[in-house]
Amino acid sequence: MTITHPITPGTALWVHAHPRSDSLNGRLFAEGVRALSTDFDVRTSDLYAQGFDPVLRESDLRPASTGGPIWQQLEDAYASGSLPDDIRSEQAKLAAAELLVLQFPLWWYAPPAILKGWFDRVLTGGFAHGDVDAQGLPRRYGDGGLAGRRALVVVTAGEDARSIGPRGISGDLDSLLFPVTHGVLWYVGIETLDLHVVHDADSLTASEVEAEVERLRERLSGIASEPARRFRSLRDGDYRETRALRADVLPGRTDLQIHYV
Amino acid sequence: MTITHPITPGTALWVHAHPRSDSLNGRLFAEGVRALSTDFDVRTSDLYAQGFDPVLRESDLRPASTGGPIWQQLEDAYASGSLPDDIRSEQAKLAAAELLVLQFPLWWYAPPAILKGWFDRVLTGGFAHGDVDAQGLPRRYGDGGLAGRRALVVVTAGEDARSIGPRGISGDLDSLLFPVTHGVLWYVGIETLDLHVVHDADSLTASEVEAEVERLRERLSGIASEPARRFRSLRDGDYRETRALRADVLPGRTDLQIHYV
Repeated sequence: MTITHPITPGTALWVHAHPRSDSLNGRLFAEGVRALSTDFDVRTSDLYAQGFDPVLRESDLRPASTGGPIWQQLEDAYASGSLPDDIRSEQAKLAAAELLVLQFPLWWYAPPAILKGWFDRVLTGGFAHGDVDAQGLPRRYGDGGLAGRRALVVVTAGEDARSIGPRGISGDLDSLLFPVTHGVLWYVGIETLDLHVVHDADSLTASEVEAEVERLRERLSGIASEPARRFRSLRDGDYRETRALRADVLPGRTDLQIHYV
Repeated sequence: MTITHPITPGTALWVHAHPRSDSLNGRLFAEGVRALSTDFDVRTSDLYAQGFDPVLRESDLRPASTGGPIWQQLEDAYASGSLPDDIRSEQAKLAAAELLVLQFPLWWYAPPAILKGWFDRVLTGGFAHGDVDAQGLPRRYGDGGLAGRRALVVVTAGEDARSIGPRGISGDLDSLLFPVTHGVLWYVGIETLDLHVVHDADSLTASEVEAEVERLRERLSGIASEPARRFRSLRDGDYRETRALRADVLPGRTDLQIHYV
């Protein structure tokens, strides 16, 4: 099986995961979509507004044919076209998109459950991963059915840049979100741009909010030509067959940053 | 306000987040609870079986009194006793527990949405954090209303110990789960024991499953006396007032491991 979903050039999908339209996030979503629409055909997944159900459950797994592990049944359900409509709709939007924007408030140092469940349910085998290349290498980590797409993560955090920065007590946000940028996005072939972080999100003054809206607009205006950050690929030769980093690459280190090129 | 919830000695709460009782996780849950019951009064939160709703939404925020940020409204709802019954029930179970077990399959390098939402909804301000001590320092990261409790994370992963180990391409599981062990548990004062990881979870033979059940039983039999791993505390003096690690502590490093004692 070779999965490759064609991109519709100039198309973006903005996934938004905040319960309130009158919040800072609601404002950034509305203004961001408007700004991005200058250059892209922007589709949206406003997960709260859609009433998106984040719980992967038996109804995602029909027909329960194989009795195998859940990921295998999801792949079977994808292949047989029997995934629920809400998932197929999200998959179609994502498949078309050249640019994916994931916007969320940082809750417990991770995306809200409604977005976590979007990963759990939408990125099924067959659709987003599970493929192998001509050499028999799995098409994942920089390759796969969604390769060629790029993602921008827009995240608001109540903390300041020091407490959630490189040596901050909460941990460096880049590392905290590695399970998203690398474990989800890069795994299915999607390159990520630098995080777009709004700090002190609960205590911004009205003029600071305006400044953040403007900063997001500016970021989006140049997004099409912005270089992506690169994680190492299975094909770079940096990993051994065991999928562990070669001993001569950054020897002795075991932190997540070793996986950046 | 000083929050301190009394522990009921010898009480444990086992939170389980897998949809199938006939799965490896279902087996580990049933056998684990049985084994732990030798030494503890074990209560359970089988999130799928309970139909737990992981989506933090407006119904959690009544009365919407302050109009402030969501965390503030959650704290107000806790203080006024107006949180929904399902949350109050989880809070009561957690408050009583000396030992917390979180058991889940690793989905996208993180807990399933149903467990992420348990963090989002149950660990409200007022209940789990938001307090300050006599010196005005926030009671979080090793302190707070839930201090004195310990947690065991039991996680199943489809990958082997190399690809999700210290130099594995998927990132080291300890770092991938730092948002849980440090960002959630340690933040609210709960110490964590070493992770209990079941690798190759989708491809175990029947006898390997039995061996894993036995390994979990043995782990649990000694759990009461097992030493916890320690993250740095706000009170250790390792962090500056800015909450960034002092320049002379592990100078130059920015990885998550710098936050371990």
